Amino acid sequence: MLTVALPKGALLQESIELFQSIGLDFSAFLAPGNRQLQIADPTGQAQGLLVRAQDVPVYVEYGQAQLGIVGYDVLREKQPNVAQLVDLQFGYCRMSVAVPQNSAYRSARQLPPHSRVASKFVHCAHDYFYGQLDLPVEIITLYGSVELGPITGMSEAIVDLVSSGRTLKENGLVELEVLYESTARLVAHPLSYRLDIDSTRQWVQSVKAQLGQTESLEQG
Amino acid sequence: MLTVALPKGALLQESIELFQSIGLDFSAFLAPGNRQLQIADPTGQAQGLLVRAQDVPVYVEYGQAQLGIVGYDVLREKQPNVAQLVDLQFGYCRMSVAVPQNSAYRSARQLPPHSRVASKFVHCAHDYFYGQLDLPVEIITLYGSVELGPITGMSEAIVDLVSSGRTLKENGLVELEVLYESTARLVAHPLSYRLDIDSTRQWVQSVKAQLGQTESLEQG
Repeated sequence: MLTVALPKGALLQESIELFQSIGLDFSAFLAPGNRQLQIADPTGQAQGLLVRAQDVPVYVEYGQAQLGIVGYDVLREKQPNVAQLVDLQFGYCRMSVAVPQNSAYRSARQLPPHSRVASKFVHCAHDYFYGQLDLPVEIITLYGSVELGPITGMSEAIVDLVSSGRTLKENGLVELEVLYESTARLVAHPLSYRLDIDSTRQWVQSVKAQLGQTESLEQG
Repeated sequence: MLTVALPKGALLQESIELFQSIGLDFSAFLAPGNRQLQIADPTGQAQGLLVRAQDVPVYVEYGQAQLGIVGYDVLREKQPNVAQLVDLQFGYCRMSVAVPQNSAYRSARQLPPHSRVASKFVHCAHDYFYGQLDLPVEIITLYGSVELGPITGMSEAIVDLVSSGRTLKENGLVELEVLYESTARLVAHPLSYRLDIDSTRQWVQSVKAQLGQTESLEQG
């Protein structure tokens, strides 16, 4: 039986709608007060796992789920060994460098060497500053409310996901640079996809057809 | 002015009560719908930062907060460079190894080499299996709902925090071993404490007096 890993949070609603559109119903996860993390599709064709966004690629990598939906930001940060098959075109956001509105710096390049940059996405931040800009900075790992870094004076800048920009604005921060843009992606366990275990390929084709995509990015 | 880092989640209520008992009121963080992450104590003696539990030691380590409250589990996992001053005797829980009820293994030592162990506390799990048991296991990092590891068959065991044991029971898991017990701790920025910046030592003494402790663990 096909197993699908679905991400808690911002991408859940649209992920469930997408699977509904191809005949798999995991909407029980959206029921108020739901505590179940594992449910069967009523048609008996598949089961769904409800996990943290960062855990989706883990379940897919280990083959506990043949398919999963996760943001490109998580794939960039974690570099999991999963096949990245379809850009699902929802969940748009961007990974950006931001500084306080009153900062003297107007581009990431202007930050002095050994500046402090707070982020939940430490690998993305490192790749950008060390790899692209060749600018050595001290990256401070935070798990939440990264905007407090500059507010408290702990860091000059942040690297964080921005969607509407409201959180930045409320906290007196401005975007300097966009590292990359992110959308939700359909990922698969590479071997399950190649060997078509539990008809994985057919489900992927259904998703592509639903989105009107015939060709798409194969293998991440 | 003294800055105190307070942890969101399970320890917040009692942390705020403790500071109230020594004359610092951060109860505005508990107001329904509060979105503020930084508030001033009404007496003007201190400000509070409301951050993720794992971020508390970061703010204290960098000196943005002179004091913080955080679980011993986070200190064991992250090994931050903070002074661990007072066992606050609330927020009791334990770090345990658990397996499915129907597992053949009745102690952690019985797990076969290269078993898979899912955990959010990868350093604690690694220290226990490699350091104490000398048993090489594959540790799978998860961010939430670690109990899904054994349920889906991805891992034989988990290492996770247990308080009432209800989550384990609901998911058909049993505790095999306790790695260590955890309670909330008062931590300080080492230099601020030593140099008594913003009267840090006096506030620590007030906390100790409140708890009836004259001697206590100094420097973690």
